[in-house]
Amino acid sequence: MSGRYSEALAAHIVASQPGDLNDADRHEAKRALINIVGCALGGADHPAVDIAIRALGSFAGAADCAVIGRKERVDPLLASLLNGISSHVHDFDDTTPSNYIHPTSPVASALFAYASVNAVSGVDFLNAYVLGYETVTRIGNATYPAHYQRGWHSTGSIGVFGAAVAVGKLMGLDKARMLTAIGLAATQGAGIRDNFGAMAKSFHPGRSAQSGYMAALLAAEGFTAGPRPLEGPRGFAEVTAGEYDLDIVTADLGRDHLLGLNTYKPFPCGIVVHPTIDACLQLRAEHDFAPEDVVAVQLRVAPLVLDLCNQREITRGLEGKFSIYHAAALALVRNRASLAEFSDAAVTDPALAAMRSRVTPVADGSVSEDGVEIELVLSDGRRLHKSLEFSVGNIRKPLSDQQLESKFRDQVRVIGEQQVTGVIERLWAIDTLENVQGLVEATLP
Amino acid sequence: MSGRYSEALAAHIVASQPGDLNDADRHEAKRALINIVGCALGGADHPAVDIAIRALGSFAGAADCAVIGRKERVDPLLASLLNGISSHVHDFDDTTPSNYIHPTSPVASALFAYASVNAVSGVDFLNAYVLGYETVTRIGNATYPAHYQRGWHSTGSIGVFGAAVAVGKLMGLDKARMLTAIGLAATQGAGIRDNFGAMAKSFHPGRSAQSGYMAALLAAEGFTAGPRPLEGPRGFAEVTAGEYDLDIVTADLGRDHLLGLNTYKPFPCGIVVHPTIDACLQLRAEHDFAPEDVVAVQLRVAPLVLDLCNQREITRGLEGKFSIYHAAALALVRNRASLAEFSDAAVTDPALAAMRSRVTPVADGSVSEDGVEIELVLSDGRRLHKSLEFSVGNIRKPLSDQQLESKFRDQVRVIGEQQVTGVIERLWAIDTLENVQGLVEATLP
Repeated sequence: MSGRYSEALAAHIVASQPGDLNDADRHEAKRALINIVGCALGGADHPAVDIAIRALGSFAGAADCAVIGRKERVDPLLASLLNGISSHVHDFDDTTPSNYIHPTSPVASALFAYASVNAVSGVDFLNAYVLGYETVTRIGNATYPAHYQRGWHSTGSIGVFGAAVAVGKLMGLDKARMLTAIGLAATQGAGIRDNFGAMAKSFHPGRSAQSGYMAALLAAEGFTAGPRPLEGPRGFAEVTAGEYDLDIVTADLGRDHLLGLNTYKPFPCGIVVHPTIDACLQLRAEHDFAPEDVVAVQLRVAPLVLDLCNQREITRGLEGKFSIYHAAALALVRNRASLAEFSDAAVTDPALAAMRSRVTPVADGSVSEDGVEIELVLSDGRRLHKSLEFSVGNIRKPLSDQQLESKFRDQVRVIGEQQVTGVIERLWAIDTLENVQGLVEATLP
Repeated sequence: MSGRYSEALAAHIVASQPGDLNDADRHEAKRALINIVGCALGGADHPAVDIAIRALGSFAGAADCAVIGRKERVDPLLASLLNGISSHVHDFDDTTPSNYIHPTSPVASALFAYASVNAVSGVDFLNAYVLGYETVTRIGNATYPAHYQRGWHSTGSIGVFGAAVAVGKLMGLDKARMLTAIGLAATQGAGIRDNFGAMAKSFHPGRSAQSGYMAALLAAEGFTAGPRPLEGPRGFAEVTAGEYDLDIVTADLGRDHLLGLNTYKPFPCGIVVHPTIDACLQLRAEHDFAPEDVVAVQLRVAPLVLDLCNQREITRGLEGKFSIYHAAALALVRNRASLAEFSDAAVTDPALAAMRSRVTPVADGSVSEDGVEIELVLSDGRRLHKSLEFSVGNIRKPLSDQQLESKFRDQVRVIGEQQVTGVIERLWAIDTLENVQGLVEATLP
């Protein structure tokens, strides 16, 4: 007997039609896709992608699938992995603050690979994306915080469900096979937080895109999986979380608007250090002082911030993305927080290292994960305060469409400005495209 | 700073040499390889393998790698997956009773794929296998029972470590890259027990063979992973088990003989129903009665048996492998327990279904997981008892070399008897082979 949550989810995915999307969802889905394609193009020349292609390229099948922002062609399973690495490696992709998942990388990475080698209309693509996003967000919310607190990087461990159902939807799986795809996703859910600060973090959404795609392929041909992947006594929720509420997976299926939960980052680093960066930038703007005037930086932050980002001694750019010390330092020293502030060179910049040594964070349960309390002590005796309830990019202060476009343009080096404009225009108009293939091709150098 | 357990394990793998193996280990390793190649050949024509090839074959890279017992050639990553499915799908492969892992499928599936496309000597192959086996067994023991009790199918979730280090050893990874391979294995560990009774169960060792192989490939090219994959606060042991003793991973590294912990199954089904089958077969041999004389079958079994195998209503052969009801029924009705007793046809055989309906198992904490207490009630009023402390194939009553050869011959249909003899001879002499490639080729139809 199948599990009722897994079965209801499978039934919803199979029944859903592009016409079910309202205008607000369509627009928010486009914003998410613009954000993720910008991130994939921005990360396409990262060493993590180069290494993955060097290591795995010769194992690729028929080389007919485009990889966003790369000249190599591979098979669509490998392309899913590579799109996932590039779109997450700068930690610049979207976040659902209700569960800290970066939902779009695993889903869209698989979808763009699938659409590169299969004819998919823009409306079907958008619909599949929304179903994948919803699936990730629902399972993420249903198992949060227990799953995350155990140490899972849920972007990987839960992202795989989204890739499976999104690709499965485009493949036209029936309900039984969709249930199998969900089962094969559940049994591939993986990714541990020990990898924060290393390339393996970006491998997580990549591998989950690839694993989800594979789940759909196997299900389509009649492979079998367990009947209760979400709710069984040995199902995903029990095995990986222990505490959960699976009603959240199916409540108001198709009637709520979960895309409204999504946020887009203004800074390419862990979301929980964003308030510190924003507050330090505001202090720089509001007061007259130079970096060398700063004697001490006192931070009060939510406990989760230190759980994730309490690393002062760092040598690699990717580590800098998870250092509350580096976050404060780069904003105070460089007065900006772009990709360049998270390079290996920036992390080893003596001015930034010196400032990191003056930062003292304290965990305080009364501070929200969205906010921060800062006191700067200056050499002339001044003490500057900033109390921030939430930072730019927060769900209460989202990036505008224009800011999303600027973010896209700012991070792309692998294609020229004119080509960027063309990609952005196609993404805003994706629901008018007869075939998404041309959009993927338009991202290639 | 790297974790000391992960680092010590990586250092051991890198330093170990074929000459470190003693004669007993070499012989036991050969027994394990004979057992697994027999299982892979026995499962090579299972629908699960056919489906996987149909679903994924077109995504395979350069088709230069042999798949045990199949005519198709694919790339070695896909071959690892397929070897893993075929060698586990009949649940006939080896088991370490200390942690219930089937250790050889994930390790050897990757190694045979690697050796099909790279020149590997027999002694290096054996050594890599033993290192992979040891790694799986040590991590399995260190996290047992918490990891398993959470619902992980540890053959998948822990098997991946063995594939990674075994392939990494043959690739000649240095210590830092071996540590990365362990990290990339840790972050791919997956596989939930909801899939017992479905094809996805055999997907677990297959996917872990493929994921471990991929971990080694990425590590070799300089991909980076977290520093404390086993012991970190967000490392594998904490995330997937919660309770563990990592000293077990490194205690007496290279000085104990863990291969002595391994066992080989006489019956193709879950290990915990073996005592019931053996006891029923003994009752048939010792007493004069016909199946239709059996009115009731009372079983007292360890609680784990009902946790895993308490399914009476079944329709598929793979489900039969995890039904204590079917186990008793097939032994009493058919007086044997070969592959044929676990086919879809056997499971739907009315005589077996009728006997299943007469079986009543009771969980009893005083009964060992190796044993069983049986009472048969016959229509003439007789009550037959059998109390079994352990069954054939148990670590205290292992299959002989001759029995392992017979098991190999009994299950293979995809190649002829002469060819089987050639494969078995090569396996017994694997440490004299200059190149294992010929051995893999010898398994092809």
